[in-house]
Amino acid sequence: MLEKVAWMNMLFDFYGVLLTERQKDYMDLYYCQNLSLAEIAVEFNVTRQAVYDTLKRAEHVLSQYEEKLGLVTKSTAERNKLTAAAAILEECENMENGGSVQQARKIIEEVLEM
Amino acid sequence: MLEKVAWMNMLFDFYGVLLTERQKDYMDLYYCQNLSLAEIAVEFNVTRQAVYDTLKRAEHVLSQYEEKLGLVTKSTAERNKLTAAAAILEECENMENGGSVQQARKIIEEVLEM
Repeated sequence: MLEKVAWMNMLFDFYGVLLTERQKDYMDLYYCQNLSLAEIAVEFNVTRQAVYDTLKRAEHVLSQYEEKLGLVTKSTAERNKLTAAAAILEECENMENGGSVQQARKIIEEVLEM
Repeated sequence: MLEKVAWMNMLFDFYGVLLTERQKDYMDLYYCQNLSLAEIAVEFNVTRQAVYDTLKRAEHVLSQYEEKLGLVTKSTAERNKLTAAAAILEECENMENGGSVQQARKIIEEVLEM
């Protein structure tokens, strides 16, 4: 379950802008703010079933986007590689021309923060 | 016009998988293979106007995805930064520990090829 929560959070981070306002609200409350279906139902004055159906639909939409665009998978692989490159460069910063190496590492870190 | 063609090609590269089969076909023939509207119309046995409408719709869909997800813009910025980092490192490969620097540069190049 925790893995599903983490995965849905990532999908929501990447593709959340493509959901409807209602889907975004429920996803945010359920997956990011950890409210229960019943609590969301009360908040929006709808049935628990309606919240469940909207969440299932939103999860399906997000999963379809990932299946087609694969951004979460690609971005994770890219981040792992760049983190490794930055770590290698950190080891080299005390040698001659260390300034240039540091400059390159800082650029990589800027990309990682984007 | 050339700028628009290049931009549409980039949008199609990133979000083309989200179009319908018909939209993909027309976009590919018009923007990648440089066929005219009339030639596409003959190929698919439809009117020139139908090709035009489908292309306009596809362009709109692609532009909407870019407006929301901004992948082309983000990816271009990221590529420029990583290319700069790789160039800096290439300059440092003749110094002590040049092997490690080269290793880091190769990782960056792998990411650029992804």
